[in-house]
Amino acid sequence: MSKAKRPRARLPRGFVDNADQELLQRQSMITTILGVYQRYGFRPLETPIVEHLDALGKFLPDKDAPDEGVFALRDDDDGWLALRYDLTAPLARFVAQNRNELPLPYRRYQYGPVFRREKPGPGRFRQFYQCDFDTVGSRSMAADAEVCEVMAACLEAIGIPQGDYEIRLNNRKVLNAILAGAGLGDDDTTTPDQASTLRAHVLRSVDKLDRVGHDGVRLLLGEGRMDASGDFTKGVGLGTNQIDAVMAFVDSGGGSRTEVIDKLESIAAHSDEGKSGIEDLRTIDQILSATGIESDRAIVDPTVVRGLDYYTGPVCEAVLTFETNEDGQTRSFGSVGGGGRYDDLIKRFTGQETPACGGSVGVSRLAAALTALGRTTNAATDTPVVVTVMDSHRLADYQRMVTELRSAGITAELYLGSKGLGHQLKYADRRGSALAVIAGGDEFDTNTVTVKNLLAGKEISQTIDDRAEWLSVADVQHNVARDELVRAIGDLLDGRNP
Amino acid sequence: MSKAKRPRARLPRGFVDNADQELLQRQSMITTILGVYQRYGFRPLETPIVEHLDALGKFLPDKDAPDEGVFALRDDDDGWLALRYDLTAPLARFVAQNRNELPLPYRRYQYGPVFRREKPGPGRFRQFYQCDFDTVGSRSMAADAEVCEVMAACLEAIGIPQGDYEIRLNNRKVLNAILAGAGLGDDDTTTPDQASTLRAHVLRSVDKLDRVGHDGVRLLLGEGRMDASGDFTKGVGLGTNQIDAVMAFVDSGGGSRTEVIDKLESIAAHSDEGKSGIEDLRTIDQILSATGIESDRAIVDPTVVRGLDYYTGPVCEAVLTFETNEDGQTRSFGSVGGGGRYDDLIKRFTGQETPACGGSVGVSRLAAALTALGRTTNAATDTPVVVTVMDSHRLADYQRMVTELRSAGITAELYLGSKGLGHQLKYADRRGSALAVIAGGDEFDTNTVTVKNLLAGKEISQTIDDRAEWLSVADVQHNVARDELVRAIGDLLDGRNP
Repeated sequence: MSKAKRPRARLPRGFVDNADQELLQRQSMITTILGVYQRYGFRPLETPIVEHLDALGKFLPDKDAPDEGVFALRDDDDGWLALRYDLTAPLARFVAQNRNELPLPYRRYQYGPVFRREKPGPGRFRQFYQCDFDTVGSRSMAADAEVCEVMAACLEAIGIPQGDYEIRLNNRKVLNAILAGAGLGDDDTTTPDQASTLRAHVLRSVDKLDRVGHDGVRLLLGEGRMDASGDFTKGVGLGTNQIDAVMAFVDSGGGSRTEVIDKLESIAAHSDEGKSGIEDLRTIDQILSATGIESDRAIVDPTVVRGLDYYTGPVCEAVLTFETNEDGQTRSFGSVGGGGRYDDLIKRFTGQETPACGGSVGVSRLAAALTALGRTTNAATDTPVVVTVMDSHRLADYQRMVTELRSAGITAELYLGSKGLGHQLKYADRRGSALAVIAGGDEFDTNTVTVKNLLAGKEISQTIDDRAEWLSVADVQHNVARDELVRAIGDLLDGRNP
Repeated sequence: MSKAKRPRARLPRGFVDNADQELLQRQSMITTILGVYQRYGFRPLETPIVEHLDALGKFLPDKDAPDEGVFALRDDDDGWLALRYDLTAPLARFVAQNRNELPLPYRRYQYGPVFRREKPGPGRFRQFYQCDFDTVGSRSMAADAEVCEVMAACLEAIGIPQGDYEIRLNNRKVLNAILAGAGLGDDDTTTPDQASTLRAHVLRSVDKLDRVGHDGVRLLLGEGRMDASGDFTKGVGLGTNQIDAVMAFVDSGGGSRTEVIDKLESIAAHSDEGKSGIEDLRTIDQILSATGIESDRAIVDPTVVRGLDYYTGPVCEAVLTFETNEDGQTRSFGSVGGGGRYDDLIKRFTGQETPACGGSVGVSRLAAALTALGRTTNAATDTPVVVTVMDSHRLADYQRMVTELRSAGITAELYLGSKGLGHQLKYADRRGSALAVIAGGDEFDTNTVTVKNLLAGKEISQTIDDRAEWLSVADVQHNVARDELVRAIGDLLDGRNP
């Protein structure tokens, strides 16, 4: 094969490989989370990666992202297919397609990759994972309360204790009522689309409260804001009264759930939508209290808007409230999940309104948070005992050792390369192995094996410079009787983490 | 939204949704299989669904399949991307890309969906799952023996006992030597491509032994064969001596591994490649014996050829040997996995030969076999206890019951729809629930709850026609004290499968 014709081994831009420890830790976390979903009565669904483009619709989040879009591909006939960009659009398709056979409410969870044809950037990939649970066919606020509850249960199950996270709840209906009261309703502009765009701009400004502060949001709602570097962001162009109304809403936060709901009632109960939104929040509050989730774990936060256009009622966000300190760098993790009610998504197919709500756990961020907390799983440390090969004519003998270890439930492998013992031990080291087994002429003559403790060796070599002294330290190498191999290795592995 | 503009809710052709029991059973099986891979020292890898088209190369199996091909899509720049069609091509890309950082031999496993742009048919999907393990960078026959061993270990781990399966082993080298001896080698035709095509036709004819029998294969190797319906299949066109040579090879099967290897030696040891192939098989035989795998579990079968062009050495296949009988229909499952040595795949990228071998477990067929055997997992029966809602003003009370059950580790959910009790019980039934909890005015007044045994009710209703009698049977409904709810439900669930 000529060199010119060889393909270059590279990943497409924005895609990554995952492997080993990191992948095992994520899988272990996912298993725990899906176990929580199961316990709450959700059942698994797996839709294909590929859907008809028109079935996915135009509910893409982050509408202002560069190169927004999906990966589309031609089908054999004249249609277009696409890689799914989330798990909610396929759920809507699935429910619409099977609505006569499904028990309603239909409760499912799904975990899997989704795809965005966007410009990749740091921490921004074109394939990533979502982990969703949804209830379709329920108008009950108990379903919305459950979204908060499941979120909290997942965080605690994977090792984030109460006090280290907060569920923040809001209601789009209250938001809409307040915006309508401020002259930003559907009837206040020439077309519903214009009204919706205007409201989206308002929400996006409110969403920046964390970064630009109270006064910054006021500027963004009005004429615009110049940042420290002199860059000017054009504002939404609201009048002072309108800005006051929006800010009164934003400022309703702080205090217990009932306190915030009372404040919201005083500014939003002027319309039916506002009243209904407040009533929703009161019901959710009561149900959360019944499950033992009080305001120390779930608050009402009027600044939570959630980016997605398709939410129509209550929305919530799970936020990690602790910070970690790595190499002097303070790091906070922020939102690690969220969800809400979306009553119009299935209507796209059926023409009939179908209430639905659900949530999603942010897998990558949570995994990063767990790593930062040092809370990883045992599965990741399950590295193989490597049986080295000194004499290639004795492969069957070495193989017998490996088989005995595996039969005892010990992860083990035969060294399968062709290098010498030094390289073999280096290999075991790179695999993260705790122990290596060595057997050459001496060992076979005396019916013994040598077990080398690689982790102990490593620790000692960091503190002891002198090679003779290094070798003399006990626990680095053991000569044991051949028929004691499994017992000896079992003992050493049990004592690995004293 | 006008009806005309509504998209139709449908799956793309050749794609399927998976859900509930079936999906849980597959997941549980996969977890077991990946656990075996782990125990053998393989580590997980997850490459993206999307790769550069040129990185995937042209190793598509089933070259004679209609509409062969991959799903390709345009990247932002001028390149082409594609959905992976297997997990081996991405492994080759990954190893070539990271060869300076990886410990060699590199041992990984991967599970995930792959895609074929082919004409879909019954049981033939355009997205399906593969579950692979591979060792890259080892020439040792111990790696090839391990492929057989892992295959056997997986089958036994998921509940297919010794005696119900067979690992069938062969060596492409022996095959090639015999073909070369019969005048079908690289030097015997004008171009290597022609020789390779001719050999592929020979192998494909041998592969049909099961279906067309010994004489049928002879005809297919010669002028051609007419089947019972009168359809004629053109033959490969070999002469009688060539056919005799090929059939001598095919007929070497039967008996212990050593017996078959001896027979093969007598017809293939005329060339270096043949000798080397025989030596490979002898080494694998010895190692398998050392792991305790004798000829009752792994045989040498000269008719095993495996479809893929990229295999260069030993190949093997795992076959289920039992049949099931459903409604008078006998069903056999055949091959449920296989693998082999492919030494040229990574060379595509690097120009350097990199030995590699691995195997793959056929997830869908195995799942079907397990279902037929009635060997499914407990996870699948973990359906929710449904707490029904008689009085919507008491949501918090019902919610408290659900929370108590979940806290005790019992899968439970609140009925979240808006229908009456009859529908709610039907819903619980459709969810496969064993128990439903009912509490109305009477129960709240007396501080009790009613627990309805749905499975018992169902069993009884199949045998008893009279409604009064049905209701009088014990065990269908229990009235228990409110604070005994969790204990009572726990007891009933424990006794569910007496």
